[in-house]
Amino acid sequence: MLEELKREAYEANIALPKHGLINLTFGNASAIDRAKGIFAIKPSGVDYTALTPADMVLVDLEGKKVEGKLNPSSDTPTHRRLFLAFEKIGGVVHTHSSHATAFAQAGRSIPIFGTTHADYFYGDIPVTRKMTAQEIGSAYEWETGNVILERFNGLDPLDFPAVLVNRHAPFTWRPTVAGAVEVAVAVECIAHMALMSLQLEPKLPTIEPELLNKHFKRKHGPGAYYGQAGAAH
Amino acid sequence: MLEELKREAYEANIALPKHGLINLTFGNASAIDRAKGIFAIKPSGVDYTALTPADMVLVDLEGKKVEGKLNPSSDTPTHRRLFLAFEKIGGVVHTHSSHATAFAQAGRSIPIFGTTHADYFYGDIPVTRKMTAQEIGSAYEWETGNVILERFNGLDPLDFPAVLVNRHAPFTWRPTVAGAVEVAVAVECIAHMALMSLQLEPKLPTIEPELLNKHFKRKHGPGAYYGQAGAAH
Amino acid sequence: MLEELKREAYEANIALPKHGLINLTFGNASAIDRAKGIFAIKPSGVDYTALTPADMVLVDLEGKKVEGKLNPSSDTPTHRRLFLAFEKIGGVVHTHSSHATAFAQAGRSIPIFGTTHADYFYGDIPVTRKMTAQEIGSAYEWETGNVILERFNGLDPLDFPAVLVNRHAPFTWRPTVAGAVEVAVAVECIAHMALMSLQLEPKLPTIEPELLNKHFKRKHGPGAYYGQAGAAH
Amino acid sequence: MLEELKREAYEANIALPKHGLINLTFGNASAIDRAKGIFAIKPSGVDYTALTPADMVLVDLEGKKVEGKLNPSSDTPTHRRLFLAFEKIGGVVHTHSSHATAFAQAGRSIPIFGTTHADYFYGDIPVTRKMTAQEIGSAYEWETGNVILERFNGLDPLDFPAVLVNRHAPFTWRPTVAGAVEVAVAVECIAHMALMSLQLEPKLPTIEPELLNKHFKRKHGPGAYYGQAGAAH
Repeated sequence: MLEELKREAYEANIALPKHGLINLTFGNASAIDRAKGIFAIKPSGVDYTALTPADMVLVDLEGKKVEGKLNPSSDTPTHRRLFLAFEKIGGVVHTHSSHATAFAQAGRSIPIFGTTHADYFYGDIPVTRKMTAQEIGSAYEWETGNVILERFNGLDPLDFPAVLVNRHAPFTWRPTVAGAVEVAVAVECIAHMALMSLQLEPKLPTIEPELLNKHFKRKHGPGAYYGQAGAAH
Repeated sequence: MLEELKREAYEANIALPKHGLINLTFGNASAIDRAKGIFAIKPSGVDYTALTPADMVLVDLEGKKVEGKLNPSSDTPTHRRLFLAFEKIGGVVHTHSSHATAFAQAGRSIPIFGTTHADYFYGDIPVTRKMTAQEIGSAYEWETGNVILERFNGLDPLDFPAVLVNRHAPFTWRPTVAGAVEVAVAVECIAHMALMSLQLEPKLPTIEPELLNKHFKRKHGPGAYYGQAGAAH
Repeated sequence: MLEELKREAYEANIALPKHGLINLTFGNASAIDRAKGIFAIKPSGVDYTALTPADMVLVDLEGKKVEGKLNPSSDTPTHRRLFLAFEKIGGVVHTHSSHATAFAQAGRSIPIFGTTHADYFYGDIPVTRKMTAQEIGSAYEWETGNVILERFNGLDPLDFPAVLVNRHAPFTWRPTVAGAVEVAVAVECIAHMALMSLQLEPKLPTIEPELLNKHFKRKHGPGAYYGQAGAAH
Repeated sequence: MLEELKREAYEANIALPKHGLINLTFGNASAIDRAKGIFAIKPSGVDYTALTPADMVLVDLEGKKVEGKLNPSSDTPTHRRLFLAFEKIGGVVHTHSSHATAFAQAGRSIPIFGTTHADYFYGDIPVTRKMTAQEIGSAYEWETGNVILERFNGLDPLDFPAVLVNRHAPFTWRPTVAGAVEVAVAVECIAHMALMSLQLEPKLPTIEPELLNKHFKRKHGPGAYYGQAGAAH
């Protein structure tokens, strides 16, 4: 069942190592069918080169495996938590891409220094607080989702389509899982450039609000004119 | 019409990801036919893998689309502004290549530290001032061209075939668009090396004038003897 | 003889340059048959592109060459020392991968800053003390093994499946040589991220014990639930 | 004439971009026939993808072109100067590889921090003094060779098979041009690791003399036992 959804999730998963975002088996992607309340996700610990669309595991929003011979990713509860809370997203991607993870390990948000960043985010890429011993000791992956939600109190997840989990790594999302992959590529690239800009200017202030507004709105929302969807420019 | 020009622009555009200068759809290249006053430019937001020569959009120097089914790049007014002001250039390239963009985000010119840089530029790679809220709020992409021109007051664009737009990224140019691609590759490589030289020596002075002169003139101008065009050496 | 063992060692050796862990001929992998007390190892100084399974050299645990036309790797006594001391390991890998080697040259262990690291190690990746002039001047490669063992006094080699030899480079191991290759990839990736996290926060403390425990135990030991081997999650 | 020599030089030249040592047309390799006193070198400014063995230019030790339709590399006098002074070398390679060039631009030798470096060099990789305005203004490329020789006063070029020309980039050499390519790869890798070790420990002392001796002599000279040429180990 849901062959198209499984293919979409599969394509997103195999795109991750192609973009250099994944070493070994770190990382996973999922795509949801909102009408059915079911998402397709990578099986746990399976090598990317051996993956097929049929390996994708179907899970419902209560966390029950609906179809699949393999165990779903151990991060499945985090994906589920995000799908439940962020109603407009259709896909979630998790990587340990090197530069973004370096910020996550250091517990630092990625400061918005330029227009590349502003094309994707309406401000700094947020980092969560550290998880408590109690959160880690209970339903760890579900609680990982909860600290993300706590950090997003007051933020629109479409204005900020990624988060760094403290001590861990980035999660990204978008209305489609292909879009979440695109954001994962952008986050890694943005993190690399931010690290180098900080090396050049350790006290570099973030981008001016007018330029942030201009670039973000050029690509997102009713006045967008980037790409082929809007009116001719 | 102008099939050869569209092919030239197309080849330049697809060369950018091949050289590792482009992630996702950041970046674009254009080539001008000076006799007709028309340039060919990449359509906006189209994936590089899907691009064909026929997708190139033809625009005239008043900014009117002359041919093409797709919207031209949102950066088209910047290209147009440069073609109007810099009469000897035949192509413009814009990338968000990582190391060069790190300098642009930090608002820093790229200091000229060695002969690799001096083979392409007659001094530091300049950075523009920041744009004002008013410039950003009006014809943003055209004004981007204007701040570049303001920075080039007194500079020959063939002696300095690139600029960093503050908070944004590099633009490069040359008498041909293939040459502008070559400069884009050089700028990224030069930025990477400058960043590392600064890490080794934070107060490193720039290159001595005699060596700058020697290397720049070895490749450019009437006394050039590098390559196959001049007399046997 | 031992064709399967030679193939296993061969596959591990050629995987090293594929993963970008090896430049030139720096590095080698070996696999042991515990029942026979014989291990297969790369011949010394042979180019990876020219290697065949039949080139693998068979050596016994006394250090005697049992089969092979070529000289075994000059690092053979280090591998032998590790196989003798660490009874649960089935393969050893040695690389000079760039980021890990930078830590080894600096005589620094790799601090455990995040969950990527905790998925593979139960703490910092240890570094040996420097070798004495006497150790270097006698059976150097065997003594290299001895300083590793001195460092592992009180450590379980399966909890810490790698070491940095001071001034030299990493060695990794696991129950299989394919697993040792996987750890070698992880060590290089972890070293890169640790270097960048230190750049962002020079005094960054290491990971909290609860999170270390959670991630290491999620993948290793009786309660592991990552991957397909354990119970459905 | 000298088809074999031209092929050898050609193979070395095209190996440079394959190893990631060359961007654009920066760099060149040459191979000498000592009996005839003639060397084959890359033509100036020709793209690597278009190069053929027949394009190699033959030059004698007085600097006269003996055969070839194209101009030889503008760096030909530097190669010639080295071939005249260093009688045991058979090939010279020049690159602008990024990490090594960063040290050259900063006027810094590459400190010997580990065994990777000691496998190739018997100490730091030396850097020349800066060239004077007079040297730059006269026979620049020949004088480049002269400042290298001045730096090598008292050094054996086979113990130190590379130099960094101040403000410029590395030159490497060996008894064969294939060996000089190998050293060029090693220099770039060593420079990268040294830069990172310095980032971790800005005052890191260089390697202990016993370990330097051990590693260099393990590979070079009468007592060498690395590889397949010596006695079985």
